[in-house]
Amino acid sequence: MKCKAGIIGGAGFAGIELARILLAHPDFELIHVTSDSYEGTPLSKAYPSFVGKTDLVFEANDKADLASLDVVFLAVPHTVALKHAPELIAQGVSVIDLSADFRLKDARVYESYYGVKHTEPELLAACAFGLPELEGEGLAVLAQKHASGNAVLVGCAGCYPTATSLAAAPALRGGFMQKGSVVIADAISGVTGAGKKASERTHFCFANDNVEAYGLINHRHTPEIEQILGIHDQLVFTPHLAPMNRGILSTVTIQLDASCPLDSTEAFTGYYQDFYKESHFVSVLDAGVMPKTSSVAGTNNAHIGVAYNPRTHSLIALGAIDNLCKGAAGQAVQCANIVFGLPETAGLDNLALPV
Amino acid sequence: MKCKAGIIGGAGFAGIELARILLAHPDFELIHVTSDSYEGTPLSKAYPSFVGKTDLVFEANDKADLASLDVVFLAVPHTVALKHAPELIAQGVSVIDLSADFRLKDARVYESYYGVKHTEPELLAACAFGLPELEGEGLAVLAQKHASGNAVLVGCAGCYPTATSLAAAPALRGGFMQKGSVVIADAISGVTGAGKKASERTHFCFANDNVEAYGLINHRHTPEIEQILGIHDQLVFTPHLAPMNRGILSTVTIQLDASCPLDSTEAFTGYYQDFYKESHFVSVLDAGVMPKTSSVAGTNNAHIGVAYNPRTHSLIALGAIDNLCKGAAGQAVQCANIVFGLPETAGLDNLALPV
Amino acid sequence: MKCKAGIIGGAGFAGIELARILLAHPDFELIHVTSDSYEGTPLSKAYPSFVGKTDLVFEANDKADLASLDVVFLAVPHTVALKHAPELIAQGVSVIDLSADFRLKDARVYESYYGVKHTEPELLAACAFGLPELEGEGLAVLAQKHASGNAVLVGCAGCYPTATSLAAAPALRGGFMQKGSVVIADAISGVTGAGKKASERTHFCFANDNVEAYGLINHRHTPEIEQILGIHDQLVFTPHLAPMNRGILSTVTIQLDASCPLDSTEAFTGYYQDFYKESHFVSVLDAGVMPKTSSVAGTNNAHIGVAYNPRTHSLIALGAIDNLCKGAAGQAVQCANIVFGLPETAGLDNLALPV
Amino acid sequence: MKCKAGIIGGAGFAGIELARILLAHPDFELIHVTSDSYEGTPLSKAYPSFVGKTDLVFEANDKADLASLDVVFLAVPHTVALKHAPELIAQGVSVIDLSADFRLKDARVYESYYGVKHTEPELLAACAFGLPELEGEGLAVLAQKHASGNAVLVGCAGCYPTATSLAAAPALRGGFMQKGSVVIADAISGVTGAGKKASERTHFCFANDNVEAYGLINHRHTPEIEQILGIHDQLVFTPHLAPMNRGILSTVTIQLDASCPLDSTEAFTGYYQDFYKESHFVSVLDAGVMPKTSSVAGTNNAHIGVAYNPRTHSLIALGAIDNLCKGAAGQAVQCANIVFGLPETAGLDNLALPV
Repeated sequence: MKCKAGIIGGAGFAGIELARILLAHPDFELIHVTSDSYEGTPLSKAYPSFVGKTDLVFEANDKADLASLDVVFLAVPHTVALKHAPELIAQGVSVIDLSADFRLKDARVYESYYGVKHTEPELLAACAFGLPELEGEGLAVLAQKHASGNAVLVGCAGCYPTATSLAAAPALRGGFMQKGSVVIADAISGVTGAGKKASERTHFCFANDNVEAYGLINHRHTPEIEQILGIHDQLVFTPHLAPMNRGILSTVTIQLDASCPLDSTEAFTGYYQDFYKESHFVSVLDAGVMPKTSSVAGTNNAHIGVAYNPRTHSLIALGAIDNLCKGAAGQAVQCANIVFGLPETAGLDNLALPV
Repeated sequence: MKCKAGIIGGAGFAGIELARILLAHPDFELIHVTSDSYEGTPLSKAYPSFVGKTDLVFEANDKADLASLDVVFLAVPHTVALKHAPELIAQGVSVIDLSADFRLKDARVYESYYGVKHTEPELLAACAFGLPELEGEGLAVLAQKHASGNAVLVGCAGCYPTATSLAAAPALRGGFMQKGSVVIADAISGVTGAGKKASERTHFCFANDNVEAYGLINHRHTPEIEQILGIHDQLVFTPHLAPMNRGILSTVTIQLDASCPLDSTEAFTGYYQDFYKESHFVSVLDAGVMPKTSSVAGTNNAHIGVAYNPRTHSLIALGAIDNLCKGAAGQAVQCANIVFGLPETAGLDNLALPV
Repeated sequence: MKCKAGIIGGAGFAGIELARILLAHPDFELIHVTSDSYEGTPLSKAYPSFVGKTDLVFEANDKADLASLDVVFLAVPHTVALKHAPELIAQGVSVIDLSADFRLKDARVYESYYGVKHTEPELLAACAFGLPELEGEGLAVLAQKHASGNAVLVGCAGCYPTATSLAAAPALRGGFMQKGSVVIADAISGVTGAGKKASERTHFCFANDNVEAYGLINHRHTPEIEQILGIHDQLVFTPHLAPMNRGILSTVTIQLDASCPLDSTEAFTGYYQDFYKESHFVSVLDAGVMPKTSSVAGTNNAHIGVAYNPRTHSLIALGAIDNLCKGAAGQAVQCANIVFGLPETAGLDNLALPV
Repeated sequence: MKCKAGIIGGAGFAGIELARILLAHPDFELIHVTSDSYEGTPLSKAYPSFVGKTDLVFEANDKADLASLDVVFLAVPHTVALKHAPELIAQGVSVIDLSADFRLKDARVYESYYGVKHTEPELLAACAFGLPELEGEGLAVLAQKHASGNAVLVGCAGCYPTATSLAAAPALRGGFMQKGSVVIADAISGVTGAGKKASERTHFCFANDNVEAYGLINHRHTPEIEQILGIHDQLVFTPHLAPMNRGILSTVTIQLDASCPLDSTEAFTGYYQDFYKESHFVSVLDAGVMPKTSSVAGTNNAHIGVAYNPRTHSLIALGAIDNLCKGAAGQAVQCANIVFGLPETAGLDNLALPV
């Protein structure tokens, strides 16, 4: 029998991507999808790719019978998960949170970057961070707790942190970075990253034929990336917007320590391939091949490429993901698979369109 | 045990889309993919969405052991299928042809539009036309022949004919068209329709931010559409190119006969919904809703919308498909499913990305 | 000395395009640009292409001293021009209206399509229709009135009517259309045509990678096109949206009368080239060449292509314009040039970017 | 009387952009445009934006009478300018070279990066580098030489070096960079940067909906940027491709020295605005505003934005240009204007389309 799943905030881009994945998932059955602003609207009316494929209708958040579910995915703005997560956990429903509320281990950092108080310190301490390739231990602990009948909570990694950390973490965990140096991450996102809300930024005519940077200096993903990488005030993160729907390419430049034993693109490629050899979803491309966002669009896959610069003794590591899938909904389902003891790739093994 | 499948001409856009579908198909196993120009190249190098997902390598056409297969898909230019199909059939291998060689029942029309002699009149007479929703009988006959151990041949419908005929056929088969009037089909295609060959037409900088018509008056899909619709010298078909990868939207305007019993958008919508009620892949949208190519991209689905114009007593019927999938590779797999007695939707039930 | 010009509604797409043209115009000086919602905002802040090029600031409509101007361009929604035009004319200020309020000669048709009463029948009777290549006489009359010191009013043609009529009018005025037949116009517009308002339709992620039809049957440009072409209930007009900023391509199919003396693409091309031989802005392309919207983007130029279909004895005529320029702001300036006795091309002679 | 101008290599993207600018230039008359592969083809056939606007026809390079011209622009691949420049100079024709042949002052660096011998060391020593805002002295010297009747040679800056150096140079010339640190420049280009040649990289279907990096580590613009900035083996330059036609955004991160007196975005903005206060084409945006490539597309303008990162004491400086205009053809005309004693903005004062 399938596990019963629900989505709170299903009408946004991450929420509807969750619906796409869960409707085709072999082990989860999507029962409820909520959206206050779309209450009563069929999914297939709001998103016509569902026409003929599901009869699900968006329900109001407080009317959906979520207590009867096994798992609820929260595709909500930050602070909203602080409200829903404890209620659901108390009802015995496991929660996979895609918001920022349970990502930062230090509540003070959360409060500093998000400007609101973190009201659930105990849940924060008990939850696991959802980036399986880099922080699998926490999820493994939750899987055991869940197997013992407990409802559990995962705070999934953000989109930029996923792309950036998958590229940078192997080098930093190898101890290759020059002490005291600064990591530079210039990342480029598709426009779905700006969300469903219609605005000047997301207007076709302003986003088309244009590239721009935004959110400089204080982007909220900065502390999350530093947390994963284990650095402090050593990251310059500059996000950019490009005219495409899906995809993040994060280009990370790392100044290498004189002691770093690797000094060629081939050597770094081999090291990275070894680092990710157990990962279903992460592919480190051959030396000389660079990742393309189109190669992972619509999938939970991540493509990584590395290049060594001998003139400056630095490493350029690039990570490409789909911001809505591996950067949000796909990763959430991957975490749910792990926590529920399912195959990690269940429902997530489709290929990107080749062209 | 899975049926063994191969693709001739697998490096082009339709061929690689076939590979994408067949690699995930529950009942076919993709064994050989040929391409003379890419011989020796891994699929994952030519199309990096396959990285980590398959070890298949393009083989030369004449080196691949195709005789051992159950089915071969031909994703080749016209005239090339005339060469391969009889050889494969003679070896007991069923053939699903995506080229134009076995679409036109009248070899003289083929010769007039393609400027070459049709060398396989017997095969042409024996094959079935591959557009299951409109010409299912021929495929049903082939399924019986195949069940009796015979190799069979399907000549799949082209991309524009699929989109255009799915929109127009119900009205014409209902006898609603004014006698002697002319059907106007203005269709818009994504750039994958122009093929993988790099050219000025397919150069990003010329295709981007531009819409244009091409192939006026004598486009080779004209007689194919007329054949499906059962009309003669009554079609004006004008294809256009728009800046997107995948998708065809065909807007068909039909002058209605005074005797036509339907005279509202609702009535035509109901008639169309009834017409396609047994079709897994065709959805007729509610009155007032018009199809979007993005809603079917990457899928074998077709969305149809209709509108009645009382001022001119005419019907506007619109069909949206993915030209590479329902218009090529997906339809080919659908036909193979039918001929091999498999569920029609096997390997073809994915949803389009909602955004 | 330059004529003093103003724009009411300058923050929308047509309004800001007017600002771009007028700031570089040799004979007009742009003094006031109004926008209630952007009051106090520099143009260069709302539209950064103006950074360093103008100090103009959007003013509230009722605070700008428009009475001192020679001409005001109205880039406002319909009904708003009904309010502004008579006031300005009464103050001796000529008005070039880009809205729909003074396009339809028959106020009852206006009222039927726009659902509001036309409150200025006298002004409507006195104004000229702004489509110089097809209705130059009215503008010539206004030029004389203006030369005699009178304020005058032009109701500029809409974007679809301009593209569609430039393509269709020569054939219809030649009497080539089959009596009682229906003209089919399938037009494709860039997203600027949907306006600056952020909405689901104009959201990048919904407009990108998608083509769709909209506004079927009753689009408000239908009666305007019929008025220009001199037909009644003989037009099926279906607009489409394509993923580009600017441009309209209108593909018009006309059933030819048996008496039509022209029966080849070359003959129609020659006829059309002769028809437009005095037009600065309209180019009829050589036989076999089809217009591209990118070739006229950012300009007041129109490209026309024609093709004769002998199988159905019909003509396909295509017109490409920039919807914001020749379809709105450029045409408005062209009309102002004519009415003010300036060279027709003043301020409008730039070339499209070649790529 | 206008100066007579010619273009060698006029059919490529930079060459045809030169034609667009020169045809509308008040002081240059475009007499010859050469292209061996397009010999005999009207410009208006190869690039239909010229339809009706010029009768110029591409001529073979060796058939055009270039000796009678005042100036020739070389829009050719590297090494080809080494052949043409000395011949033209010897004939008394000034040369504005857009290729890489006369950019690098040290011929050994040229030979190392381009793999060919530099055959014109004397011309190299005599020419000026064409990036007026940062290296105006050399051009001023040439202007004097030209005023005295001498033919002169300008080696224009490349597209990435222009965008990157305009962003980075003020900080480096102020002595603000930490000694021994590495400058990180991640730049994003539109697809016109990849040239007119149809290839897999420039195919619409591969470039659309995709972002990727390319040319890592050893891109040929690396030594040119280092030359302008006065650094050596201190630059990591990583170019990226985004789905748009025109535009480069270069995001430069500079580690600041402890001695740097500026420590806020406002302070750096003020410093940059002062640095460029005499530049017609460079606008430093207000603090908090970031440059958009669309705001400068089709123009010779550059937009610069800066942000100070207190957590890492580093500066992020961004430069946006149109790679074909300020990054190639526009800058070449700007240099020609200076050398010929014309107003620097002649023929270059158009605004970008606001949307």
